[in-house]
Amino acid sequence: MTGLSSRISRFYESLEARDWSALEELLDPDIVYEVPQTRERVSGRAAYLRFNQQYPGDWHLVVRAVHENGSGGAAEVCFCVGGEEMVNVAFFELSAERVRAIRDYWPEPYEPPPGRERLVQRY
Amino acid sequence: MTGLSSRISRFYESLEARDWSALEELLDPDIVYEVPQTRERVSGRAAYLRFNQQYPGDWHLVVRAVHENGSGGAAEVCFCVGGEEMVNVAFFELSAERVRAIRDYWPEPYEPPPGRERLVQRY
Repeated sequence: MTGLSSRISRFYESLEARDWSALEELLDPDIVYEVPQTRERVSGRAAYLRFNQQYPGDWHLVVRAVHENGSGGAAEVCFCVGGEEMVNVAFFELSAERVRAIRDYWPEPYEPPPGRERLVQRY
Repeated sequence: MTGLSSRISRFYESLEARDWSALEELLDPDIVYEVPQTRERVSGRAAYLRFNQQYPGDWHLVVRAVHENGSGGAAEVCFCVGGEEMVNVAFFELSAERVRAIRDYWPEPYEPPPGRERLVQRY
C-alpha cells in the first residue's frame, strides 16, 4: 500500500473510531457524497460530517477490500448494526490530499432470476 | 494505468465485444465468480465463459470507473439492456496474469430511509 492507497483505509478507520477530526482532515471542503440508489446527495464537508455523526445505530465497519490508484479507489465493506450484516460498496474520487467525491452503494439480497439454475451453484 | 491496471478494462472490453477467446485469456482456469446478493457461484473458466455466453438480452457495458492495484481491483459499470440502465459493481482478485475471483454486485434503487431528509438533497 502506498501513501495514496491508505487514504481510503484511514477514511474507514476514522469512521469506525468516530474520530471526527481525523475524518475531517481527510475530506475536501467541497466533498460531494451520493447514494445513487436513492438519489440522495450531501454537499460540503460540514454537511457530510453531520450526516455521519447523526447516522443512527451502533454501527461498525469491517473493510473487506480496498483498491486505489492516484485519482480514486473503491472499497468493499461489511456494515454491521444490531446483529445485522450488510454489504457496503463505495467508489472514491481523490484529490492530491483528500476525498472529494463518494458514490456509496448498498446492494441488498434478491432472488436469482429464473433460467440460469444449471449454470450456477448456490452457496 | 499500468499493465496491471488495464486488466479489468480489457475484461470489460472483451465482454462488450463478445470476444470469448480474449476473455478466456484473461481468466484463471480456477476462476470463482460470485453474486453475493443471490449467493450464486460459478466455478471454473469453462463454466464462467458459458455463463456469460448465455447471459440473456442485447446487453452493453459502459465502464464508469476502474481502480486496481497489484492483487485486485474494482469496477463501476453501467449495464444497459433494452433501454434500461443498471449499475453493476464488481470486485476482482487478480493473480500474476489473470482474473481468479469476481464478486459481482447489482445495487437496485430503493426509497431513502425516513429521518434524514434535512441532512440530504435529492437529485
